[in-house]
Amino acid sequence: MTAAEPPRRGRARIAGPGEGIGLDELALATRNHGMPLEALRYDVTPPGLHYVLTHYDIPAVDPATWRLEVTGAVARPLRLTLDDLRRRPAVTSRVLLECAGNGRARYEPRPVSQPWLLEAVGCAEWTGTPLAPLLAEAGVAEGAVDVAFTGADHGVERGVEQDYARGLPLAEAVRPEVLLAWAVNGAPLPPQHGAPLRLLVPGWYGMAHVKWLTRIEVLDRPFRGFQNAVAYRLKVHAAQSGEPVTRIAPRALVAPPGWPDFMTRERFLRAGPVALSGRAWSGRAPVTRVEVSTDGAATWTTADLAPADPAHPCAWRAWTLAWTPEPGSHELVVRATDADGGTQPTEQVWNRQGMANNLVQRVPVTVLG
Amino acid sequence: MTAAEPPRRGRARIAGPGEGIGLDELALATRNHGMPLEALRYDVTPPGLHYVLTHYDIPAVDPATWRLEVTGAVARPLRLTLDDLRRRPAVTSRVLLECAGNGRARYEPRPVSQPWLLEAVGCAEWTGTPLAPLLAEAGVAEGAVDVAFTGADHGVERGVEQDYARGLPLAEAVRPEVLLAWAVNGAPLPPQHGAPLRLLVPGWYGMAHVKWLTRIEVLDRPFRGFQNAVAYRLKVHAAQSGEPVTRIAPRALVAPPGWPDFMTRERFLRAGPVALSGRAWSGRAPVTRVEVSTDGAATWTTADLAPADPAHPCAWRAWTLAWTPEPGSHELVVRATDADGGTQPTEQVWNRQGMANNLVQRVPVTVLG
Repeated sequence: MTAAEPPRRGRARIAGPGEGIGLDELALATRNHGMPLEALRYDVTPPGLHYVLTHYDIPAVDPATWRLEVTGAVARPLRLTLDDLRRRPAVTSRVLLECAGNGRARYEPRPVSQPWLLEAVGCAEWTGTPLAPLLAEAGVAEGAVDVAFTGADHGVERGVEQDYARGLPLAEAVRPEVLLAWAVNGAPLPPQHGAPLRLLVPGWYGMAHVKWLTRIEVLDRPFRGFQNAVAYRLKVHAAQSGEPVTRIAPRALVAPPGWPDFMTRERFLRAGPVALSGRAWSGRAPVTRVEVSTDGAATWTTADLAPADPAHPCAWRAWTLAWTPEPGSHELVVRATDADGGTQPTEQVWNRQGMANNLVQRVPVTVLG
Repeated sequence: MTAAEPPRRGRARIAGPGEGIGLDELALATRNHGMPLEALRYDVTPPGLHYVLTHYDIPAVDPATWRLEVTGAVARPLRLTLDDLRRRPAVTSRVLLECAGNGRARYEPRPVSQPWLLEAVGCAEWTGTPLAPLLAEAGVAEGAVDVAFTGADHGVERGVEQDYARGLPLAEAVRPEVLLAWAVNGAPLPPQHGAPLRLLVPGWYGMAHVKWLTRIEVLDRPFRGFQNAVAYRLKVHAAQSGEPVTRIAPRALVAPPGWPDFMTRERFLRAGPVALSGRAWSGRAPVTRVEVSTDGAATWTTADLAPADPAHPCAWRAWTLAWTPEPGSHELVVRATDADGGTQPTEQVWNRQGMANNLVQRVPVTVLG
C-alpha cells in the first residue's frame, strides 16, 4: 500500500503511510472511551472505566414507554415491558467484553475507524434474564437459523441509514449464558451501556451485545443487515466478502508498572522487585497460559495464572509475575494461549477493517538506577 | 508558524501545518474521555458520561488507610479519616466542570497535549463538606496567601516528577461553594473521579478540582509548583511567563440535532420543525444570553434561556430554540454571553498550551428534502 485510498461508499478507508490520526477518528476517540490500563487492577470494572463504543448517538429511551418485541418466525409474538422482564428469573454474570476494533490504531497501514490502541475492554457484572427461555415461550419455528437484534440507536454508516442491528446464529442465541440485561454492577444500566436493556453474548466481540434493545426477530434465513454483511468482516481486499467476526481471540494485557509521563505515556520504575500483573481472556476456549517477556519478545517466562473460577466462567483471569529489573530500558511483552491452541502473534496479521487484532501488547519501561 | 517545533524539556510542542494527531495524543484521547454531546440532554450528567482527564495514572487508594492532612501555616494541623469528614456538615451541589484544554484540537496550529474537541464538560451533583470551616478549625495564620492541594496521582510531566498539586489563592479557597467531595450523583466517587475525596472549586476550570486529595497545605507565599508555574498558563510565546488559567470562560453548546454518520459525525435531519437545545455556562458571571446562528455566524437569533435556578447556582443552564429549516446544508453556530460582558469569539484567539479556548461551536447539518 503506497498511497491513501480515497473513501468510497460502502468501503472503509485505509490511511496513507505516515498519515496521522484525522479529526474524524479523533471525534470518535473523544466520544467513545477505553479502559485506562491501570484499571486492569479491578476484578470488576466500574461502569465509567469500562470501554464504550457507540456507533451513532446514545439514544434517549424512556423506560416507562419502552417495549421489547419478540417477533418473526415464532408461534407467539411477545411485547414486553421492562417490569415483565424483571419479573423473570434473574442471573448476574461477570462478563469480559472487548471491542472487535481493539488494537486497530496499531495496524500499519491503519484502517480509518474508531482508533483504539489496546484499551477497548472491560469486565463488569451484568444482571438480566436468560434469552433462551424467552425464545422458547415465543415458540421458535422449525427451520429458524438466525436471530436479529435491533437497537434504538439510529444513524448512517457508509451511506446506509439504519437502526443498529445484528444477527446471531440461533444456536448461539440459545446458549444459556446469553442474557437480556437491565443492570450492571448492581445499578440500572447507565445510558451509554444500553439503558434500559441490552443483549449480552459472552465470548463474542462487543458488536454482538446490542444496546438499547427494542426488537428480537427470529429469522428462517440468514440475517443480511449491514453490521453482519458489510461491517465486521475479516478480509484483506475490499472485493472479498470476508469471514464474519465472531468470538474474542485470546489476549493478555499487563497493567503498565511504575508511573507515566503525561504526554508520551512512557513508563518509569525504580530498581527493585516489581509484581507485574494483568488479565487474560479468550472467547474461544479457557486461557491455559500467560507468558511475559521483559526483553522485547526474545525470551519468555510463564506467569502465574489465577485458577479458573467456576462462579465466573465468562470473566477475565488475573495473572502475576515477579520481576527484578536492572536499571535501563526494557520492553515488556505479554501473550495468552487458550485451550484451543490459539495465541497472539508478535507480528501483525492485517485485515482491512482492523478487526479481531490480537497482536501482542508491548510496554517500553525505563528502570531508574 | 511554518514547521513543527521540536519537543523541549519544560515546553509544550506545537504540531506542524497539516500534522495529524499523533499516537501520543491518541493515547491520551483513548484513556481520557469527553461527554458525547447528546448527553447535553441530561440536567445531571451520569458519571460515566462526564468528562475525565487524568494527568498520570488513576491511583489505587485504600479508603480505610487514607488520611487527609491539613498542614502548613495553620495553628492546629489536622489529620482526618474519611469518616471524620463524612461526620461534618454535608452539602450537595450541582457543578459545571470543564477542562481548561477543551477545544484545543481545533486550534491551528495545534498545541500537542490531550486533544479535546468540544466535549470536555459535565455537570454532576457532588456531595461533600465545605472547605472554609475546616480551614477555620485548623486556624489559618495571618499572612497566608495560597492553599496547595496535593493528589495521590504520581507521574512526570515535561521532565518534572511530581504528585499532581495545585495552588489556589486563599480568598478563593474559603469561598462557601468550595467543597471536599466524597460522593457524586448520590454514590461514592468512582476511581476516575478522585476516590475517596476530591476538591471542587465551582467556577474554575478542572485543573483546580484536585482528585485523590491527600494534603492541604496553607502557604504564606505563592505556590510555585509545576501545575501553576509552568502548566496552565495563557501565553503565546514560550519565553513568556503568561497569565494563570483560572475561571471558566463563557460557552454555549448545542446538542447536535438529527442523526450522525458513524465515521464523519456529519449530522442529518429531516425537513420540518426542530427544537434545538443545549446548555450554556460561565465561571465568571451568570449567563445572560445565548444566540444561535443557522447560517454559519452571518445572522444570530436569541435563544430561550432557562431562568437561573437559585438551588443550582454553579450548574449549567438549558436553552432552546425552535427552527424550521429548508432542505440543504446549514451551519449551526452558538455562543453565550455573561453578565460581565464576556462572550465567545468566532475566530480563534490562540495560545500555546491550548487553554481556555472558547471559540464558538460549529455544527454543519444536512437537511433532507
